Amino acid sequence: MHKAAEWLLGYVRQMGLNARIYETAGNPIIFAELCRHKNAPTLLIYSHYDVAPPGRMEEWKTLPFSPVRLNGSVYARGAVDDKGQLFAVLQGIKSVLAVEGKLPVNVKLLFDGEEEMGSPSMDAFTRKYGDMLSADIVVVVDILKYRNDMPAIYYSSKGLLSVILEVSGPAMSIHSGIYGGDIANPAEALARMLAGLKDRDGKISISGFYNSVRDITPEERADFASLPFDRDGIKALLGVEPIAQEKGYTPIECVMARPTLSINGLWGGALPGAPIMIIPSTTGALVSMRLVPDQRPEEVFRLFEDYVNSMVTSGVRVKLQVESSREPFITPRDSPAVRIAGHALEYAFGHRPVLVRSGGTSGIVSLLKKATSIQDIIATGWGDPGDGEHAPNEHFSIENYRRGIIATAATMYELARMKKPAKSERIVV
Amino acid sequence: MHKAAEWLLGYVRQMGLNARIYETAGNPIIFAELCRHKNAPTLLIYSHYDVAPPGRMEEWKTLPFSPVRLNGSVYARGAVDDKGQLFAVLQGIKSVLAVEGKLPVNVKLLFDGEEEMGSPSMDAFTRKYGDMLSADIVVVVDILKYRNDMPAIYYSSKGLLSVILEVSGPAMSIHSGIYGGDIANPAEALARMLAGLKDRDGKISISGFYNSVRDITPEERADFASLPFDRDGIKALLGVEPIAQEKGYTPIECVMARPTLSINGLWGGALPGAPIMIIPSTTGALVSMRLVPDQRPEEVFRLFEDYVNSMVTSGVRVKLQVESSREPFITPRDSPAVRIAGHALEYAFGHRPVLVRSGGTSGIVSLLKKATSIQDIIATGWGDPGDGEHAPNEHFSIENYRRGIIATAATMYELARMKKPAKSERIVV
Repeated sequence: MHKAAEWLLGYVRQMGLNARIYETAGNPIIFAELCRHKNAPTLLIYSHYDVAPPGRMEEWKTLPFSPVRLNGSVYARGAVDDKGQLFAVLQGIKSVLAVEGKLPVNVKLLFDGEEEMGSPSMDAFTRKYGDMLSADIVVVVDILKYRNDMPAIYYSSKGLLSVILEVSGPAMSIHSGIYGGDIANPAEALARMLAGLKDRDGKISISGFYNSVRDITPEERADFASLPFDRDGIKALLGVEPIAQEKGYTPIECVMARPTLSINGLWGGALPGAPIMIIPSTTGALVSMRLVPDQRPEEVFRLFEDYVNSMVTSGVRVKLQVESSREPFITPRDSPAVRIAGHALEYAFGHRPVLVRSGGTSGIVSLLKKATSIQDIIATGWGDPGDGEHAPNEHFSIENYRRGIIATAATMYELARMKKPAKSERIVV
Repeated sequence: MHKAAEWLLGYVRQMGLNARIYETAGNPIIFAELCRHKNAPTLLIYSHYDVAPPGRMEEWKTLPFSPVRLNGSVYARGAVDDKGQLFAVLQGIKSVLAVEGKLPVNVKLLFDGEEEMGSPSMDAFTRKYGDMLSADIVVVVDILKYRNDMPAIYYSSKGLLSVILEVSGPAMSIHSGIYGGDIANPAEALARMLAGLKDRDGKISISGFYNSVRDITPEERADFASLPFDRDGIKALLGVEPIAQEKGYTPIECVMARPTLSINGLWGGALPGAPIMIIPSTTGALVSMRLVPDQRPEEVFRLFEDYVNSMVTSGVRVKLQVESSREPFITPRDSPAVRIAGHALEYAFGHRPVLVRSGGTSGIVSLLKKATSIQDIIATGWGDPGDGEHAPNEHFSIENYRRGIIATAATMYELARMKKPAKSERIVV
C-alpha cells in the first residue's frame, strides 16, 4: 500500500499538482490539489486506491494483480473499483492541462487507502483537515452505472445505525435439563426482541421509528417507477425472489428511499457441530438500520433502547451498544452538483443519467459533510454493473474508461460555467 | 483409560467375578457378573470409571489426580462422580462375599468408560449384548443425594428431542444496504419461529405438544411440595432468581415433571467482534425439548416440523434435523426397584429417601430399556450435592462411602427377599 501511495504521489506531482501523503494508523491518504483561481469554484473528487481482496484465486481467468487487456477491457482486481476509475479522473485532469495549460476550476483530489475496510482513518483525517478539503461540490467517484446503458447520479445514501444487542441470563451456561424448568433462557428473550422488531407488513415496530422519515416525493416515485428492475437477474444470482420488504412500496422504493432494518448476525450458546444442551449464559445479535433523511442515528438509538427495555422479561439483562452510526444524506435533485454531473455524463455517454438513491451508506459523504459543511455532494462512476466489482475477473472496458476521462473534463467545464465560488471558500495555494 | 480399565478388570476378577473388557471405538466397557443362582433374581448395577475434565487447575487445593484424604473426605477428580461410588458398589459386593462366601442374588455390573462424553459406545453395546444385560432390576449408581440429609431415588428421567433448525435465504450473504429493502432475511424468520415456540405463560405453543403428557399425580404433587427448594443457593450460584417457567406449576414441578423447551444456541452471519452489515445466507438454532411420559420423540418431532412449516415465510427455506432423541422413562413409584432401593437406603442412612424425578435425560436408562426390555430401573447414589461433582476440589466423604457400601449390600438382600426371578430370565454362568 505504501508503494502504491508513493507511485500515485509521484504521478500526480508529475501532472503538476501539489500533493502530499498523509500517514494514518493504516494505509496512507493522498491529498492533491491545483487551486490557482482566486475567483473560481472548487471541485473535490474522492476516490480510493485500495482494492477488495481477490477472493478465490481459482475463479480468476487471469492473475488478479497482473492487469491484462482482453476483449476491449482491462482485467485485474481494482480495474473498475476503484483504481481504474481513479485513473480516469487523473487522465481527465491531465488532458485538460495538456490542451489548456490550466484547469477551468480549482480541483482537489482525496484518495483513500482504506475504503474497502470502511475508511477507518477518514474520520480523524477529515476532522483535522476540514478547511483544506473545503469545496463547492464534491463528486465521489466510486460507483457503477445503474445499467450498462444508464449512467447514474446518486444524490442520496442511507444513514446507518448498527447496534449490538446482548441478552444475558445465568452467570454461566447451565444444563438445560436441570434448569430448563426454572431459569429463564436469554436466547428466548433475544428471539422475542428480534421477532418483535417488524410487523407482518414489514413495518418496523419500534415506536416512533418513522416519525422523521422524509416521504418519497411524487417526482422520485415516478422516476423510480421508470427504472428497470432486474428481478430475473437478482433471482438468478441469489436464488430467491426479490420482494418489497415494506408493504405499500415497490422493491426499488424500499431499497432506495425507505428505512430498513436487518438482523446481520446472531450468536450464543451451542454452535453447529457442537450440540451442547445448555441454557446459554449470553446471547447476542447485530442489528443494523439503514436510515433515510431526516432520521438521526442518535434519536433512533433512543427509540431502539426504549423498545428493547420494554421487552425485557424476568431473569434476563440487556446490554445495548452502538457499533456504528452514520447520518443519512441527500442532495437536492436540482442542486448544482446534480446538474453539473448530469450534463457531464450526458456529454460523455450521449444520454442523460438516471437520478437514483443508494440503499447503502457512504461513510465518506457523512464525514465530509460533517467536517466541511459542504452540502452539495453526489456519487457517480463509469463502470458497468457486470464488471465484477468485488468478484473474480473484475474488469473495466476501455470504452467506459475513455468516457470517464471525458466526463471528468466535462465536470470541470460545467462547474466553471454554472457555479460561482462560495464567499466563504478558502483557497489553498 | 485402558490402564484404568485393566486395573478395574483385575480387581473384579480378584473379587471372584467373571469379567471382561469390551473394546469400543472409544474407551473400553467392562462387564462383570456373578450369577450362580438358578432361582434368584438378578440385579444389574450401572456405573462409570471415566471422569469429567479437571477444569482450572489453579482452583484445586490438591492435585486432581493424586487422591488426598482430608477432613474425613477423599479429594480427587472422580472421588464421588463416579469412581468413588463405583468403588463403594464393589466393596458392598466384596463384603458380602467375604462374610457369606456367596451373594444372595445374581449380580451384573456394567461399567461405562464414556459417561462424561454422553456414552457414545453404549448404543451399539447394549444392542449387541441385550441378553447378557438382562436383569430383574437396574440400579444406576451415578447421582447424588437430594440434600445432604436426603438420599434420593430417581424413578423418572426426561426424554430428549433436540433439533437443528436451519433457515436459509439468499444463496450467499449479501450487503444489507443494497438488499435490505427487497430480499427476505432468514435471521428474521428464524427469530419469529423461535419467539413463537412459547406463549406468555411459558406454555409451549407447538400444536399438540401436550397431548401425550402424563399429568403429575396428586401423590407426586404433595411429595414435590414437601421437598426443600434452595432458591437462595441457586440465586447465589447463577445470579438470577429461579422462576417456574410454565404457569400453573411450581419450579420443582417444572424441573422434574413438566416438559421443557430450550433454545441451546443460535448462530448465523456476523459474530461479536466482526460486525459485517449483511443479510446472512444461513442462520440456525439448536432447540431441545425435555419430554415427559408418555411423549414420544418421533411424535413430537412431527409436531415441531408442522409448527416450523406453518411459520415459513416468503423468501426463506427451512431444514430441520434431529440431533438427538431419547425416550422419557418412568418407573412406577410402587415398583420393586423403588421399594428395594428405598429400604436399602433407609437401612444405610437411617431415614427414608425422597422419591424424585430428574429434569435431565439418562441415556443409559433409555438404551437399557430398549435393549433388554427391563422396565424396573432407578438411579441413586450416596454423595452430597456439595461434593464438587464436575467442579474443582471434588470429594467424597468416607462416611457416605461407607453408607454406600452398606446400601449396596442391603440392596442385594432386599432384592432376594422381595422379588422372585422373572420366568424369562436367562442365567449367564
